[in-house]
Amino acid sequence: MARAQTGDGARRSTKWSARRDAIVDTSARLFAQRGYHATGIAELCEANDLGRGALYHYIGSKEELLAAIHDRVMDEVMAGADRVVEAGGSSSVQLAMHGDELLDVIHRYPDHVWVFLHEFPALTGARADTFRGRRRRYEARIEAVLQAGVDSGEFRDLDPWLAARAWLGMHNYTYLWLQPRGRLTARDVAKPFSELFMRGIESPARRGAAG
Amino acid sequence: MARAQTGDGARRSTKWSARRDAIVDTSARLFAQRGYHATGIAELCEANDLGRGALYHYIGSKEELLAAIHDRVMDEVMAGADRVVEAGGSSSVQLAMHGDELLDVIHRYPDHVWVFLHEFPALTGARADTFRGRRRRYEARIEAVLQAGVDSGEFRDLDPWLAARAWLGMHNYTYLWLQPRGRLTARDVAKPFSELFMRGIESPARRGAAG
Repeated sequence: MARAQTGDGARRSTKWSARRDAIVDTSARLFAQRGYHATGIAELCEANDLGRGALYHYIGSKEELLAAIHDRVMDEVMAGADRVVEAGGSSSVQLAMHGDELLDVIHRYPDHVWVFLHEFPALTGARADTFRGRRRRYEARIEAVLQAGVDSGEFRDLDPWLAARAWLGMHNYTYLWLQPRGRLTARDVAKPFSELFMRGIESPARRGAAG
Repeated sequence: MARAQTGDGARRSTKWSARRDAIVDTSARLFAQRGYHATGIAELCEANDLGRGALYHYIGSKEELLAAIHDRVMDEVMAGADRVVEAGGSSSVQLAMHGDELLDVIHRYPDHVWVFLHEFPALTGARADTFRGRRRRYEARIEAVLQAGVDSGEFRDLDPWLAARAWLGMHNYTYLWLQPRGRLTARDVAKPFSELFMRGIESPARRGAAG
């Protein structure tokens, strides 16, 4: 914090943050390819073109690096969820927007998301608690939209917790095949997924009206 | 094979297989808890109460053990898929049965499925090819049911590949929270998931009839 108090310090701090972000990105690719446990500090140093001391200066520890990768994903996911709340609209519209936002993150951060979904058990102590809390808060957002839709009569009577798990599974699992330079964009997937899910949960009254 | 030719040998072979199966199960639990790469041969020996030589006698190599865990899952999954084909019925009925069968495997084999979904990138060469081929054949079964439903007019016009990915995501992702001794049985989940998915893909004509 102290270094950000002067103009010169602020520039150095921004530069430091940018370098750290680059290290997080490069390391995410390495962890995604080889696995977190199988990737040693020596490999991280080589991939980031840094000595051991310099690497620790930026990341503190290998587990802190893993936590930073998880945070990168959760920062993006929660920013998307906040945009949905700000935009407002019916529960159907909000759920469709949540799908767009989530698949956009999965599409843009394939390595980070891979590490996020595969290596979260390697986080320990406070870092594991923080991660679980953030993930849980996002899941609660999806449950809340489903509950609101049931309450308003937009969605049929269903278990919001279970329906949220179905929605999360459908969307999260795309990390296995949704590729940045693949044939399908995030939007190509989000639209039919949203259509399928919405038909699956809409209330009988709406089905009658739509049919 | 030679030892199976006498009664005594057959008994020993059955015993050998049973012991190997037990080693696969115990090791799946260990890999699920600690990760494949982080689990050493010494820990496998200790957990299975075997010396290093005895362990290799049963499993050949650590990667062969990983392949055996993957095979255990795929054997169960494909046996379930075969039962669905034998039972026959409409595409809707078949897809619902596939859901029952898949969630039953995930519910009964939480450790194996965890390892299956997290550690498959650790399989190499022919083992990786075999695994990918088996997984692909199962996915093709789901796509085929969806295509048949579209062809027969049971399901609306949709992309069977993409709809299969939605279905697989919904179901596979339950491995994160569906527990053998949890509050929900496989059937508690399979039924509402099937209802949601079926409403999501049924043809407008059927929707009208049902509504």
